[in-house]
Amino acid sequence: MADPQTYLEQQSERYYDDLLSLLRIPSISTDPARAADVRATAEWVAERMRAAGLEGVRLLETAGHPAVYGQWLGAPDGPTLLFYGHYDVQPPDPLDEWVSPPFEPTLREGRLYARGADDMKGNLLLPIVACEAWLRTGGALPVNVKFVFEGEEEIGSPHFGDLLAEHQALLACDRAICTDGGQLAEDQPTVGVGTRGIAAAEIHVRTANTDLHSGLAGGLAPNPIHVLANLLATMISADGRITVDGFYDEVIPPSAEERAAIAAVPDDSSLLQDRSGLRGLVGEAGYTAMERNSARPTLEVNGIWGGYQGAGTKTVIPAEAHAKITCRLVPDQEPAGVIEHLREHVARHAPAFAEATVVTLPGSSDPFLVPGDEPTLLAAEHVLEGLYGRAPYRTRSGGSVGALPLLRRYLGVSAVTIGFGLAAGGAHAPNEFLPLDLWRRGQRVYAMLLDALAEQD
Amino acid sequence: MADPQTYLEQQSERYYDDLLSLLRIPSISTDPARAADVRATAEWVAERMRAAGLEGVRLLETAGHPAVYGQWLGAPDGPTLLFYGHYDVQPPDPLDEWVSPPFEPTLREGRLYARGADDMKGNLLLPIVACEAWLRTGGALPVNVKFVFEGEEEIGSPHFGDLLAEHQALLACDRAICTDGGQLAEDQPTVGVGTRGIAAAEIHVRTANTDLHSGLAGGLAPNPIHVLANLLATMISADGRITVDGFYDEVIPPSAEERAAIAAVPDDSSLLQDRSGLRGLVGEAGYTAMERNSARPTLEVNGIWGGYQGAGTKTVIPAEAHAKITCRLVPDQEPAGVIEHLREHVARHAPAFAEATVVTLPGSSDPFLVPGDEPTLLAAEHVLEGLYGRAPYRTRSGGSVGALPLLRRYLGVSAVTIGFGLAAGGAHAPNEFLPLDLWRRGQRVYAMLLDALAEQD
Repeated sequence: MADPQTYLEQQSERYYDDLLSLLRIPSISTDPARAADVRATAEWVAERMRAAGLEGVRLLETAGHPAVYGQWLGAPDGPTLLFYGHYDVQPPDPLDEWVSPPFEPTLREGRLYARGADDMKGNLLLPIVACEAWLRTGGALPVNVKFVFEGEEEIGSPHFGDLLAEHQALLACDRAICTDGGQLAEDQPTVGVGTRGIAAAEIHVRTANTDLHSGLAGGLAPNPIHVLANLLATMISADGRITVDGFYDEVIPPSAEERAAIAAVPDDSSLLQDRSGLRGLVGEAGYTAMERNSARPTLEVNGIWGGYQGAGTKTVIPAEAHAKITCRLVPDQEPAGVIEHLREHVARHAPAFAEATVVTLPGSSDPFLVPGDEPTLLAAEHVLEGLYGRAPYRTRSGGSVGALPLLRRYLGVSAVTIGFGLAAGGAHAPNEFLPLDLWRRGQRVYAMLLDALAEQD
Repeated sequence: MADPQTYLEQQSERYYDDLLSLLRIPSISTDPARAADVRATAEWVAERMRAAGLEGVRLLETAGHPAVYGQWLGAPDGPTLLFYGHYDVQPPDPLDEWVSPPFEPTLREGRLYARGADDMKGNLLLPIVACEAWLRTGGALPVNVKFVFEGEEEIGSPHFGDLLAEHQALLACDRAICTDGGQLAEDQPTVGVGTRGIAAAEIHVRTANTDLHSGLAGGLAPNPIHVLANLLATMISADGRITVDGFYDEVIPPSAEERAAIAAVPDDSSLLQDRSGLRGLVGEAGYTAMERNSARPTLEVNGIWGGYQGAGTKTVIPAEAHAKITCRLVPDQEPAGVIEHLREHVARHAPAFAEATVVTLPGSSDPFLVPGDEPTLLAAEHVLEGLYGRAPYRTRSGGSVGALPLLRRYLGVSAVTIGFGLAAGGAHAPNEFLPLDLWRRGQRVYAMLLDALAEQD
């Protein structure tokens, strides 16, 4: 009987066919007209799990699209590893920019083009076939595994917290892998160890019960736009430091080890600058671009409005003005605490003649960072370095992934993120693709990772 | 033969009937459906001028509604006095708040209620019947007179500058009275001596060629709303002084005489505060409320917008942000010069990573102030004090009246504003009214004023 790695090679064509089948189902979670396709995809994934030899496979229903669950718990003394991921995809628009149709996967020069090829139907199959390889060759896995693949990641995982709360016992685990990652280059393994959180709020400023005539009231009536502008101007200093009172109180500065890990990753901020037509980069003094973009918090005004916005002039002193603010958070900031700092800051700095209120908006999430000595992280790095011949990058994302802090909150695990597409693989864009050689290497990584986690325990 | 004052008393009933006739025509200049009524009103006024014995009466056509012209030039050695006013009215909405229909003038307790009763069909008739009284009793006026009553004042006098340019010779004069004023109280004569000008602009801030992801670009990309807020925050100090570089360079501070005149008028700013629900008044330190509201310039943000304004959160760093600004101007500020100060200020204070531009908007007008020794002013004050038994207030309006600086620019005259309705007479609002006793007193004022100007010459 072959070993798992040999089995994976032998089944290569079949797995490729599986991938094509999965990519053909348009599981667009945001489109109500595709709800049946989303469910069909969940059923397909469940069936594929069963075929791999996983047990207890079933759909976990939510108020939205279902999640798919599967397990293998035949290693009573070993740790339990949870694979998190999603089977839904982004809409394919704009359709006319696709070289081949988004739901007709097409191979060109070693790259498979399809919506979801990179994000993340290719990645979804990897741990399933890795388990299959172990089960078909030795009849057992080195560790216990559980799978939970949700169907709403691309719409912000609105029901994933509820699902974790409801199935906390079922999903209990010791380790977790988020399979929704990628690599910065084909030969450069990458491990995602952090995402920033989000706190969201609106500031409302009111100074009058009605708009006023700028001539008859001008020189007397306060202007809420001036008040709001002054408030916003108190929130960031000229050197990019956030000056909301207390804002940094809970921030843990990146350690020397973390700063070294960030410094090891090539600085790609000039790409952003060129692509977006920026005349310069900004941010908190004392930190590198890559640190500012991942390991330091931000405060952004996402929108502002008040008074007259139409053509020409309206000589009015408005009654009110508004701004939307989101902060990206790092450990140990908490959304509610950050909003409270903002609320107190606004109360302290608003003039007596203005009613200035801070209202929390939905959409918050906690910051997330895998501890540097997390066993799953060390195991993944060990396997990846062995296969690629170079140390993986440890990356922290500037964005936010709601599922990761939720997994920590409900299951107590720090999920390490890996993936075998490319950061430039067109996730969410036309002509999304997956390099097939990378995908096949990913199968081997997962098979080895199961073993590495067992040996570590 | 009676003297003019006796004649006015004798004709009182007939003049009242004239006023009712004039008020019944809905000369709503902003409503295209009322264009025929507007012209009918012009014709009515022209016919009434002819009946009064005025000469050369005709309509002066414009690209919009016509103006009405009339003259009497039989005093070759006397000065020529121009009466400026308008025959158009505001729309009567909201109709259901009128106690009696707006175009069915109704007398209740000595007040005649109708749209235009106060602003300014009542005032329009006064100099006509005053001239009639002189012409019917002595066959001549003490001075030469010209009339120009426009039909577009309520829509901002959009063609009045063109009209003055075209008819500069026809309208040449030595003195001018703007008949579009009012009194602060029934027993308190009031002379309007100034209005503020307007400069209008938009500020556009752009930092990127597209909106950016606040996570992936956060800590790197500049935020145009922060830039705009910071720019606006540099424009007014905490004590209400406008801190746009050079803004006050051309401002002539009010003289001691002017400050005394302003101080003589009761401070009604608390009315504004109460009515508008203001928690406090603001403005430039070192000046009284009434000075700030009339004799000092202002800078107001009339509107602001940028980024996302919808429900909930959008985690975006916008590409651009915008604000509309108007300044109220006092002598010797000029709109173009003020915008240039603003442009230079923005250029100096905008960071290098932002493209910040200042675009002039239409709607500018010059500030206007009648010199304290202007003969028309002294004559009007003399007549009013004699009739009322108390010195008139000299008031400067915080608002802007385009016609006054245009009369100065094209005809070289400083028009003094008088009127015989009440400031609280509901101009532009439902239940506009005219106190009839005040209106009858106004007839006498105009008759005496013609004489006073002749004696002065």
